[in-house]
Amino acid sequence: MAASTRFAWAKGHGTENDFVLLPDPDGSVHGALDPGFVAALCHRRRGIGADGVLRVVRSSAVADAPDGAEWFMDYRNGDGSLSQMCGNGIRVFARWLAEEGVVDPAVPLAVGTRGGIKVVSYEGDGRGGDITVDMGVPELLGTTWVEIAGRRVEARHVDMGNPHAVALVDGLDLDALGPLLPPGYDHALYPEGVNVELVQRADDRRRVRMRVHERGSGETRSCGTGVCAAAVAEAASAGATRPVTYHVDVPGGGLQVTWRTDDHVVLTGPAMVVARGDMAWTG
Amino acid sequence: MAASTRFAWAKGHGTENDFVLLPDPDGSVHGALDPGFVAALCHRRRGIGADGVLRVVRSSAVADAPDGAEWFMDYRNGDGSLSQMCGNGIRVFARWLAEEGVVDPAVPLAVGTRGGIKVVSYEGDGRGGDITVDMGVPELLGTTWVEIAGRRVEARHVDMGNPHAVALVDGLDLDALGPLLPPGYDHALYPEGVNVELVQRADDRRRVRMRVHERGSGETRSCGTGVCAAAVAEAASAGATRPVTYHVDVPGGGLQVTWRTDDHVVLTGPAMVVARGDMAWTG
Repeated sequence: MAASTRFAWAKGHGTENDFVLLPDPDGSVHGALDPGFVAALCHRRRGIGADGVLRVVRSSAVADAPDGAEWFMDYRNGDGSLSQMCGNGIRVFARWLAEEGVVDPAVPLAVGTRGGIKVVSYEGDGRGGDITVDMGVPELLGTTWVEIAGRRVEARHVDMGNPHAVALVDGLDLDALGPLLPPGYDHALYPEGVNVELVQRADDRRRVRMRVHERGSGETRSCGTGVCAAAVAEAASAGATRPVTYHVDVPGGGLQVTWRTDDHVVLTGPAMVVARGDMAWTG
Repeated sequence: MAASTRFAWAKGHGTENDFVLLPDPDGSVHGALDPGFVAALCHRRRGIGADGVLRVVRSSAVADAPDGAEWFMDYRNGDGSLSQMCGNGIRVFARWLAEEGVVDPAVPLAVGTRGGIKVVSYEGDGRGGDITVDMGVPELLGTTWVEIAGRRVEARHVDMGNPHAVALVDGLDLDALGPLLPPGYDHALYPEGVNVELVQRADDRRRVRMRVHERGSGETRSCGTGVCAAAVAEAASAGATRPVTYHVDVPGGGLQVTWRTDDHVVLTGPAMVVARGDMAWTG
């Protein structure tokens, strides 16, 4: 990006996982995003404030974009680092495209990501209602453990493209835990760290509550892959017959996860663009 | 405001005390701000995110505005409640007016607030450089105490229009304290609560470091009246001859405070508008 530029942006969120959107259809506005610029945008007091940045760019303008999708989600974490996919972010990304009128919400939308092509579908006209994303096939692995509030509890190892340890903790009061400190985990099993989900069953047998501690971020209000991992672990634990749908309540809102007969997990929930603006940046 | 409106806004900050600005020159866009709307705007994930809202309105459009200023700063806390004045907010407010080109930065600017008329002055052309605000005459009252990290320490009672207890704590390591929990204080002296400043002298005798716990907000990155109260308490403690200027370093940046011979305290520091936008609101 040039030394001083005025550019458009928007802010959106899905279950309070929030993002700065940077429209850049032909890649001419931002090009390769500078990590320092991303971190400055995401700073909650000096910048706009967000968990991450979603650059909205056509795949044709991205050298390493996967084939098969017109649009590519160039996703960055709030610290400026690269990331492959984000289950909440891609729904916000899809909402933006629908509000801009550049996609047809009546047909499933392929979106290129660093984690491959993901397919998103809209409810209704694409401007309201939930958005669903196919999160792919989970790997349900063995058991492990996590240590929470001084207690070691059993957890299920689930891979959703990224590693998760899901602890079904009906014996713990999720509200009484206070802010989640970094949980202990098996470093031999997870040499690059792990996302830890604490899951409590609700009275309704297809509803669970969840809190999540994300590697690199700490406790967050919501985590798309974490919500999917939680549903998969719970379904396996309950011996549920597929297709099965779980409602997962996280601190930032509610999501639904369906584990289909073809093994794919799909995540459904709200996504909204809350503000639009432009900004002068002198880098 | 109408049930669904598209309106302009901006975000700015002074030493990381951040605000949503709502331009509303003739009072026709927002009128009386609804506390729920203010709180939604200030929500850091579902809204834009800020410590408070600054509605920019002409005094002629505000029934109870004080006489003598063209512009009125309608300031609200992040929870939607009314507030009189904000030493960082008014500098951001003044920056906005200068960037909009509706004031002459070469002459001091009177701004109406619920705490009366305040006078602001610009460095240079008003688009860069520091902004100074006359914070009025402090009341240097007796000594009191606060309790921090299990220790009771002496503090100076200073009134800057709002109550402060300033503790000069050279014996405490400000960095080692961790997040500030609500300090203990004399409830008989401060029946409506108190802002507590912890102040540590730097090597330079006219420089101090400060952390602040604001009543109603908890620990913040900066507090304009708190910075002034700290400088006044330190000047009194050091027996400094006026005029005297202190540099006060807070977690969000650096500010200068001058206590003049006419007893007025003036606060000088950075203020910037970082983003502008518009937003649709369905209330």
